[in-house]
Amino acid sequence: MSFKIYDISMLISEDIQVWDNEESRKPKFNTIHHAVTGTTESRICLDVHTGTHLDAPLHMLADGATIETIPLHDLHGTARVLDLMHINEEITRSDLEPFAIQHGEWILFKTRNSLSEIYEFDFVYLKEDGAKYLAELGVKGVGTDALGIERSQDLFPTHRTLMRNNVLILEGLRLDVVPAGTYFFILAPLKLKGIEAAPARAFLLKM
Amino acid sequence: MSFKIYDISMLISEDIQVWDNEESRKPKFNTIHHAVTGTTESRICLDVHTGTHLDAPLHMLADGATIETIPLHDLHGTARVLDLMHINEEITRSDLEPFAIQHGEWILFKTRNSLSEIYEFDFVYLKEDGAKYLAELGVKGVGTDALGIERSQDLFPTHRTLMRNNVLILEGLRLDVVPAGTYFFILAPLKLKGIEAAPARAFLLKM
Repeated sequence: MSFKIYDISMLISEDIQVWDNEESRKPKFNTIHHAVTGTTESRICLDVHTGTHLDAPLHMLADGATIETIPLHDLHGTARVLDLMHINEEITRSDLEPFAIQHGEWILFKTRNSLSEIYEFDFVYLKEDGAKYLAELGVKGVGTDALGIERSQDLFPTHRTLMRNNVLILEGLRLDVVPAGTYFFILAPLKLKGIEAAPARAFLLKM
Repeated sequence: MSFKIYDISMLISEDIQVWDNEESRKPKFNTIHHAVTGTTESRICLDVHTGTHLDAPLHMLADGATIETIPLHDLHGTARVLDLMHINEEITRSDLEPFAIQHGEWILFKTRNSLSEIYEFDFVYLKEDGAKYLAELGVKGVGTDALGIERSQDLFPTHRTLMRNNVLILEGLRLDVVPAGTYFFILAPLKLKGIEAAPARAFLLKM
């Protein structure tokens, strides 16, 4: 089987961009080189919303599902990368309508966010009406190249609309080198037990 | 595209089995529920050799490559699950010869290790002569269902033989429900910068 692979995951380092640029959210790596055995071993600490990560409903809904319970068939399948490079603030329903989005697809937003290695407080986000539209269509998940799918909306209606309608939320993608189009999508969140999100590796395959 | 997916990753919890059963190696999860916003956020600490994980050469070779530099095409491709349930101690060259192993394959060992949820000090491991054989054949990687690919060998010759010959080492698989055979393999280590291993999610797809 011949295919091209795009790695659409952020590189996780101690100086990776983090939410609100808060120092306490940065990852910490502790590496030990053992002189006698010649081996190296590391332990890391990180927020589960670091870099590319998948939210589970528990992140925003008190009785929401945890990350390890997300069905495998939701993590793999058809994804469409939408070119939204022209948008500067909000992604609305009217921005999405021209794409003829289908039930069961993953939809990935390629925006100016993919070009920034530092945290931008004014990142492009999905407005509540866009979230309602995607929930009505029954997409499998929505991926964004910002660290969050929304900002500037009280009570997080974009997150909660998607989560209440079983639409997965993937944040922190890197899509700058990926052409708009349809791909086979592989999403691999760490299999963490009982919590509200997991850092993930994500790939797009073009057969 | 229709396919069956096997998730061959360990579930990571605070009480997951860890190397040598050392308490200090266990993961720690710190979860905060924010009453005002109704949101939940967690931070985790874990050894990068926790659960299912991919070693980079730096783990055992002082000048070895780090985990984020492993080429993408080594993380995806054909994998063969070998049924080695009859072996009680060591996997040797003579155990492997009957399988007609091919250059460029991933080879995954399904052993009694997959059945245990606690750390077994006498886990089934790959002996040095088996590692030399796989390196000569030029396999892409070797996966095992123990937390380590070897034990009871001074200076870690199994690890070092494989690493010096560009054979990847994947540890901590769960293969008990996977039939022996050929699969499309997807390996997704966290994209960590500059260190010697990463926890991973791993899937087998049967088309």
